[in-house]
Amino acid sequence: MDALLKEIAERIGPANVLVGDDVTARRVDWLTGAPCRAGAIVRPASTDELAAVMRACHAARQPVVTHGGLTGLVHGAEAAPEELVISLERMSAIEAVDPVGGTLTAQAGAPLQRVQEAAEEVGLQFPLDLGARGSCTIGGNIATNAGGIRVIRYGMMRQQVLGLEAVLADGSVVSSLNHMLKNNAGFDLKQLFIGSEGTLGIVTRAVLRLQPPAPDVQTALVACPSFSALTGLLGHMGRALGGSLAAFEAMWQSHYRLLTEESGRHPPPLATDAPFYVILESLGTDPDAHAAQFSRALEAALEEELIDDAVLAQSTQQRHGIWAIREDIEGLIQALSPLFTFDVSLPIAAMERYVEDLEAALHRAWPKGRLVTFGHLGDGNLHLSVGVGVSDPATRAAVESLVYTPLAELGGSVSAEHGIGLEKRDFLAVCRTPEEIALMHTLKQALDPQGLLNRHKVLPHGAG
Amino acid sequence: MDALLKEIAERIGPANVLVGDDVTARRVDWLTGAPCRAGAIVRPASTDELAAVMRACHAARQPVVTHGGLTGLVHGAEAAPEELVISLERMSAIEAVDPVGGTLTAQAGAPLQRVQEAAEEVGLQFPLDLGARGSCTIGGNIATNAGGIRVIRYGMMRQQVLGLEAVLADGSVVSSLNHMLKNNAGFDLKQLFIGSEGTLGIVTRAVLRLQPPAPDVQTALVACPSFSALTGLLGHMGRALGGSLAAFEAMWQSHYRLLTEESGRHPPPLATDAPFYVILESLGTDPDAHAAQFSRALEAALEEELIDDAVLAQSTQQRHGIWAIREDIEGLIQALSPLFTFDVSLPIAAMERYVEDLEAALHRAWPKGRLVTFGHLGDGNLHLSVGVGVSDPATRAAVESLVYTPLAELGGSVSAEHGIGLEKRDFLAVCRTPEEIALMHTLKQALDPQGLLNRHKVLPHGAG
Repeated sequence: MDALLKEIAERIGPANVLVGDDVTARRVDWLTGAPCRAGAIVRPASTDELAAVMRACHAARQPVVTHGGLTGLVHGAEAAPEELVISLERMSAIEAVDPVGGTLTAQAGAPLQRVQEAAEEVGLQFPLDLGARGSCTIGGNIATNAGGIRVIRYGMMRQQVLGLEAVLADGSVVSSLNHMLKNNAGFDLKQLFIGSEGTLGIVTRAVLRLQPPAPDVQTALVACPSFSALTGLLGHMGRALGGSLAAFEAMWQSHYRLLTEESGRHPPPLATDAPFYVILESLGTDPDAHAAQFSRALEAALEEELIDDAVLAQSTQQRHGIWAIREDIEGLIQALSPLFTFDVSLPIAAMERYVEDLEAALHRAWPKGRLVTFGHLGDGNLHLSVGVGVSDPATRAAVESLVYTPLAELGGSVSAEHGIGLEKRDFLAVCRTPEEIALMHTLKQALDPQGLLNRHKVLPHGAG
Repeated sequence: MDALLKEIAERIGPANVLVGDDVTARRVDWLTGAPCRAGAIVRPASTDELAAVMRACHAARQPVVTHGGLTGLVHGAEAAPEELVISLERMSAIEAVDPVGGTLTAQAGAPLQRVQEAAEEVGLQFPLDLGARGSCTIGGNIATNAGGIRVIRYGMMRQQVLGLEAVLADGSVVSSLNHMLKNNAGFDLKQLFIGSEGTLGIVTRAVLRLQPPAPDVQTALVACPSFSALTGLLGHMGRALGGSLAAFEAMWQSHYRLLTEESGRHPPPLATDAPFYVILESLGTDPDAHAAQFSRALEAALEEELIDDAVLAQSTQQRHGIWAIREDIEGLIQALSPLFTFDVSLPIAAMERYVEDLEAALHRAWPKGRLVTFGHLGDGNLHLSVGVGVSDPATRAAVESLVYTPLAELGGSVSAEHGIGLEKRDFLAVCRTPEEIALMHTLKQALDPQGLLNRHKVLPHGAG
């Protein structure tokens, strides 16, 4: 690797080739704090520099791992000593904002929050939002097709991307920096790089779609008497609010009661004896009309017995208090440690039975085991937290099997929004057919025949 | 081809292998009425039958052309005598509707309008809409990534597809019938088949996303004093209406005046001396609140001088009267015949100058030539109608050059929503780089190395 690093240092400057302590000081996993084990970290400053780096790596058959904001949850940033990390930290510029066309062009290393702020400065919004907004990058959001809390209203990252530029494994640059909502001139190549976790190319720049602002936020916490009431409520709120329903975050009683009454971490805004709770959020423009519409929708839900009780946030503080219950991962870790977390999706109609069966199976195997369930119900996405008292690899494998296996029959997915990375690679076949996996290998082979880009991630190297 | 047809007839029944007059009676182009010239038309009834047909074609190296509703505009359905047409007309079932999850599963040959109706039957809507709704099929909508009149609100066909199934060139079946909004388990293979015009696989089934209904429609025709007022109006209406703005259809004076005052085909709802007109449409839920919000937005636009005048549709009949001006293709044909039509997209900020320059260039070449412009402004999409008195191939080529060449520098596209087909294949390089076209060939080679599927369409066969 030394000769290659010398060549790269000549191209991008020795200060931008990190080795030794500068590598191990970097944490590749924010949950475990695991250090980076790569042979070196290189930091190109431009697409041209990155293309030169990849041309050199390609000639030397040097495998690389791309780093964005390092906020992923599936070990996608892990690198072996014989691998080279390419960090996009110096490619973080917001290059252009077009308020007329409603577009923003950024380099891949730009943090999500900076993009959100730049959109607000021209009176628009960039609607993708997630907890890691301050650290995660646009390139990482694209590579993992990030989701978050507003997917029912605005879609995942894929829907926010109008154009992008990527460097391929051989160092060639594919620049598809389209700015229009409509462009059907040939294959839509950007789709290849969105959600493929850096295995088909390294995203360097993107043109993002901005949206009109929706400044009035209405938030409520409601209690549902049954799962059928919960799904009825989803349909009712969709019809009553039209395009403005932005969040439909369900908490099973297990989740709501644990983080309020049981742990004492949050005062319960509603009594804890309902089977299901939902945080409803709507984004509107005209404050008075929107507030009235939201209240009417809740009143109708009460009348139709879709909900038993409701509390409407009357201030930003109350709103944050409601969301704090849903987002209290710390509280889950405290209560369930050692904690296994899962991010699955499945058809909404199958969720109640799936959770009940999973809970029963866990209790059979570990009588003191606990399952805590919440999720973006409107998106078909559940986040499952499991604590069984131990976390050795065999236990982990047994829990994974209980969680993932039933998804095959239900048409569910082992990853709703976190991706596959290394963590779920061996479970891909639970939810994708042999023909699908063969086609993924065909694509990998066509774009990266030497297997240089994020090897072993998503798909096993050499298999297929 | 005879041995192959015999083999296919044994598999799918002789009544489903059409030859002779049954082939030539079919029109492959609804504008010209050109007859089908294929060697035969085969009509499988299921994915299994289609897979068997493709396995046989693959073994015999038989090129095929897929037929949906035959409403395309870029000669994508043309077939040569040595080619076999595969028609999906017998695969038109709506297989399932899930009102809880908001999904509909259909075979590729299902007409768009039947899908819209099936969604309405369960109190939801399928929002993609275009003039050919009665004939065009879901498979064709997917293969061409259809657009239409509600793209600013709901996106193009790509955004409506949750999962799909396709038969590849070798007859293998890739079934990705995902039902969830979120699924990041490996590469999103369906994206390969959306918008690639049948060149990478034959779409057989799809899971579509349904939306809550938005039954209250508010429609207005407004006159704008300048292009900057027009773009200001787009931003203003987006902010004022939030998610409910569904159409922003601009007509240059050339279009509005021709189809009202000049031709006498439609009474002009507003005086014809403004430089720009826009049809604004908003889709809401609560009729009173939505109507009030729409009126306030229009009043504010008048006060801010973004518009000079406005007429609000007070009835369905008035609404149809306004749209009839925008949709009167017959009127354009009458006035400009022989007519050349174009479907381009470009950044909104560049549109005024592009149209002015194009008009000047046309007048220099053909002093009596006319350019009539309208389009989905909010999507960056212009439909240009050009009449220069003649339509010989040399004239067509000269007009195409004037229309397409300036798009390269502007970052525009030679096809916003109609696709490439045969008609625009030789102009692909105007708006896609050599690296992009090389990557398209890489994909074609990986998925269809014998070049059997819709050969010569989109990309030249064998080049690259």
